[in-house]
Amino acid sequence: MASRSRVRVRYAETDQMGVAYHANYLVWMEVARVEFCRSAGLNYRDMEETDGIVLAVIEATCRYIHPARFDDEVEIETTVASANSRMVHFSYEMRRLTDNRTLARGETRHLFLNLATTTPARLPERYKPMFGLLP
Amino acid sequence: MASRSRVRVRYAETDQMGVAYHANYLVWMEVARVEFCRSAGLNYRDMEETDGIVLAVIEATCRYIHPARFDDEVEIETTVASANSRMVHFSYEMRRLTDNRTLARGETRHLFLNLATTTPARLPERYKPMFGLLP
Amino acid sequence: MASRSRVRVRYAETDQMGVAYHANYLVWMEVARVEFCRSAGLNYRDMEETDGIVLAVIEATCRYIHPARFDDEVEIETTVASANSRMVHFSYEMRRLTDNRTLARGETRHLFLNLATTTPARLPERYKPMFGLLP
Amino acid sequence: MASRSRVRVRYAETDQMGVAYHANYLVWMEVARVEFCRSAGLNYRDMEETDGIVLAVIEATCRYIHPARFDDEVEIETTVASANSRMVHFSYEMRRLTDNRTLARGETRHLFLNLATTTPARLPERYKPMFGLLP
Repeated sequence: MASRSRVRVRYAETDQMGVAYHANYLVWMEVARVEFCRSAGLNYRDMEETDGIVLAVIEATCRYIHPARFDDEVEIETTVASANSRMVHFSYEMRRLTDNRTLARGETRHLFLNLATTTPARLPERYKPMFGLLP
Repeated sequence: MASRSRVRVRYAETDQMGVAYHANYLVWMEVARVEFCRSAGLNYRDMEETDGIVLAVIEATCRYIHPARFDDEVEIETTVASANSRMVHFSYEMRRLTDNRTLARGETRHLFLNLATTTPARLPERYKPMFGLLP
Repeated sequence: MASRSRVRVRYAETDQMGVAYHANYLVWMEVARVEFCRSAGLNYRDMEETDGIVLAVIEATCRYIHPARFDDEVEIETTVASANSRMVHFSYEMRRLTDNRTLARGETRHLFLNLATTTPARLPERYKPMFGLLP
Repeated sequence: MASRSRVRVRYAETDQMGVAYHANYLVWMEVARVEFCRSAGLNYRDMEETDGIVLAVIEATCRYIHPARFDDEVEIETTVASANSRMVHFSYEMRRLTDNRTLARGETRHLFLNLATTTPARLPERYKPMFGLLP
């Protein structure tokens, strides 16, 4: 299970070093994660609004290999590294589209959380296949 | 009625032109607005949580005069340009602390909004003096 | 001369009011402006790198009409309201793609600036047609 | 060697979950890092401008323990976990000021980089003591 998303580096995302500021890679991973869900048939917004379940980030890591620059198109390949009914762990590989150069690799770990009570939740059965889990 | 707040330009806020990215000035105005409220005795977070009233931005303008740079301390002077029980209009003057040079001038207009219904609200009586209004 | 661009509202761009934070609309206008230039045949990055000319923002305004929400697709129509060899003034209309509802209208004014000297510059002749100017 | 810095959570930094968006913690670590340098006698801006040396981030990690909320004051304790003349590794502990609750722990690894050539650099001798290194 993998999905590919694209972002184009915004001027707002650059810093005075002339490259994309490092915290933005976490935002790109979020964009990619939402698109991973969409491509798996899960509308993240609906899950949050209808089921009251959110994917709370409990850990995020990024290793920066080569800087992204303004106007670069970055392709993010997102995979589920592991998952169970309580949590999910995503991996990301970010490459520059023009030359396929790897820019960064990241990982995020998430707990399913009940939005109203902010307590851990179990992933509803119908969403399990989307994370590669048996219902 | 005026308050003075300070922000120090973050590396994250610079862009590849080597100056603070222009959209961040709106964020600084928000920081200054919250501190204006605090100095007037109004805890903005409490107003939102307790009264369910938010100050929704309906218009924002900024005129950029001289660029702010990384690590500059910027002083923001905030005043209420006008207000009534339905809306408030803030003005901001942003100056660099080291030489008092004016960097930008901004304005924001806000509606009081009921957070639950997202419909226009009247400012609760007890908050009126904080915006220079008669109760 | 008009161009249309799209952004999808990121989770990172929402705030605790449950809508897109107002300063992000200025970032979307920047995205739209860069795409306006691209569609007119002007690669903004090249202009900055090759000619050392930047479009410095001297004023930005946004009027917020209806809130954008997470995952909304926003279409931004960008036009040159006026231009001369020293400056350009863009207008933006932002609409939600699903129902064509107008979310916001904005304007930005820019000076052409020599990046090295940070002094006002004249737009190079070959770029003039891209802003609707006679060479 | 440790320094303590404070940030107050901005409205802009919240998301629709009602908490500080996770990527902002990396920005706070940057603010804390710059203040660590300042308290050690190193003006980060000067190092970049005068020596042409930047601290390029090669890895960033954050573990989120308890969410920060709008208007919370967050204290960040920054320490150098290890350093040599080529790189430095910072650790951060973020606590909420009102009740000293730990919100997050983070780490960043950096290479000293020559800004002009974007090649690895050695830390200039006079800066070594600031990172706990023998000159």
